[in-house]
Amino acid sequence: MQSRFFTLTHYPTGLPKREFFSLESQELPDLGEGEVRIRNRWLSVDPYMRGRMTGLRTYVAPFELGKPMEGGAIGEVIASNHPKIKAGEKVSHMGGWRDIAQVPGDSVTALPNSDVPEQAYLGVLGMPGMTAWTGLNLIAECKPSDNVLVSAASGAVGSLAVQLAKAKGCHVVGIAGAAHKLAWLESLGVEPVSYKDRSAQELSDAIKLASTNGIDVYFENVGGVCLEAALSQLNDGARIAVCGMIDSYNAEKPAPGPSNLSQLVVRKAKMQGFIVADHWSSYRYFLNEVAPQVAQGKIVYKETVKEGLGSTPDAFLALFEGGNTGKMLVKLTD
Amino acid sequence: MQSRFFTLTHYPTGLPKREFFSLESQELPDLGEGEVRIRNRWLSVDPYMRGRMTGLRTYVAPFELGKPMEGGAIGEVIASNHPKIKAGEKVSHMGGWRDIAQVPGDSVTALPNSDVPEQAYLGVLGMPGMTAWTGLNLIAECKPSDNVLVSAASGAVGSLAVQLAKAKGCHVVGIAGAAHKLAWLESLGVEPVSYKDRSAQELSDAIKLASTNGIDVYFENVGGVCLEAALSQLNDGARIAVCGMIDSYNAEKPAPGPSNLSQLVVRKAKMQGFIVADHWSSYRYFLNEVAPQVAQGKIVYKETVKEGLGSTPDAFLALFEGGNTGKMLVKLTD
Repeated sequence: MQSRFFTLTHYPTGLPKREFFSLESQELPDLGEGEVRIRNRWLSVDPYMRGRMTGLRTYVAPFELGKPMEGGAIGEVIASNHPKIKAGEKVSHMGGWRDIAQVPGDSVTALPNSDVPEQAYLGVLGMPGMTAWTGLNLIAECKPSDNVLVSAASGAVGSLAVQLAKAKGCHVVGIAGAAHKLAWLESLGVEPVSYKDRSAQELSDAIKLASTNGIDVYFENVGGVCLEAALSQLNDGARIAVCGMIDSYNAEKPAPGPSNLSQLVVRKAKMQGFIVADHWSSYRYFLNEVAPQVAQGKIVYKETVKEGLGSTPDAFLALFEGGNTGKMLVKLTD
Repeated sequence: MQSRFFTLTHYPTGLPKREFFSLESQELPDLGEGEVRIRNRWLSVDPYMRGRMTGLRTYVAPFELGKPMEGGAIGEVIASNHPKIKAGEKVSHMGGWRDIAQVPGDSVTALPNSDVPEQAYLGVLGMPGMTAWTGLNLIAECKPSDNVLVSAASGAVGSLAVQLAKAKGCHVVGIAGAAHKLAWLESLGVEPVSYKDRSAQELSDAIKLASTNGIDVYFENVGGVCLEAALSQLNDGARIAVCGMIDSYNAEKPAPGPSNLSQLVVRKAKMQGFIVADHWSSYRYFLNEVAPQVAQGKIVYKETVKEGLGSTPDAFLALFEGGNTGKMLVKLTD
């Protein structure tokens, strides 16, 4: 059986060029012991993948040039050599960027029975959702009385962070760019703030208007002017959960950081980076709390869907141009 | 009785000019109820005072222009209208930048009986020492197995931070400039690293050589290239205690921050600012631990002493030019 997959041909500097992603195919070997074969239905593309394209050690190993790329995926088992996994089961796994995956059965997770569409397990109920929950609760220790600021607030992670904070009773400000994203945030009860064409000082002033009592928790996805503006509005004892800094992922040379980092001292504030994988043992707590709310429509989510395996690189690259509202997905059809 | 004191005439931009400090005098009023009159013997000048010269809210109120400046001081009570304080007692208090202070008795602290020279209560056993202890223990949660980096390591705060970390059993690297400071650090068992004429990359390489197993705890007093270099060498789970960023205190315009702040995510690191006043309830624990070691000579300290009230501004300004080893003090003589 043939598998079609993407490989990376170069470690890019700056925004990766489309032609650095090469669609290839291979005849799959016979199933090894414990292996399963999966027909993927949904592929995830996520900003963190840019970090695997640098060739440098980060918190995950870089993609190997010329080898199948990896990423979150949802699919149906079509053959199994694993005692506990049967053909026909739906699973989530890391064999993305391809149509047919062949992976160790121990590395896949069966999807729960639920009324939630299966692809939600790549988004609001998957890694991005767990990231929002972890950053807000375990890193920023968000309390109901907090004033909360979220950058990239309409993205896969941010849009759950704002809703979880609203559900706690927090006053929530969300930073986004496009008008329809700001409108969506407003419909969620979030104070929307645009970063477009604004200096750090102008963005800071806009945040101040949207949260007159300052900021106690900042959920950081962006960096750049968003971070500088947020630092200026911190309250004493503020907590910044640093999930990512997408602003810098494609920087061709190092971009300077915020000029007002000493606000951490003035405001006795904490700024802490985290990687969701380190907290995965809490995934069941996240799912217990959030899945029912998603099933009941109390937590909403959006998806931006590209069709067909061939569109995977475009879907990935669009993440850096604000091309997604909510979770960016690739839908595969037979 | 006359009191001579310094006032600030302007809120400076950049390094304050010497002439912005004006020496004035006034006839003191009669002692009010509960007040004490103190002949100061030692005055403290500290980098944090620059923050009180901005006219902007920080964690302490700004100095009022034309009013006596304030700061740590040690002196002898020469008159008391307070039931618990007697003339002849030695006290520490905040009525510095002057020769004779008249302050509420409730705001002064009697010096303990000890063999340690009285001025140590402005340094190694006072606010700077407590700052080092707080940052290392309460903020950075330093453990014996940690590799510790300290910037401004030969200063009043840094020189105690390195010794406390050494006493725990840590591998300790200290950043300083002048050769005699580096030599002193080496004599304390600290790996000395010079920041002079080094880019962030070059300083990072030097830190790597001095701590081949990376950095678990960074005690930050400086900012600038020191912070950028330190971020590049962090281990997973590193903790940065941000005590201050003296590099930026006299910046005439905002200086860019480090370009590699996303290392906080990659290394899942925490960066936390703190103000020692918030932790003052732990001062007795600090004193119980550190005072005996100072008395026994197990913890050493240096002082840089200027003579006479008139030299106070010069002593203060020298802090920003590396003019001190250890604690900068002004000694008053009758």
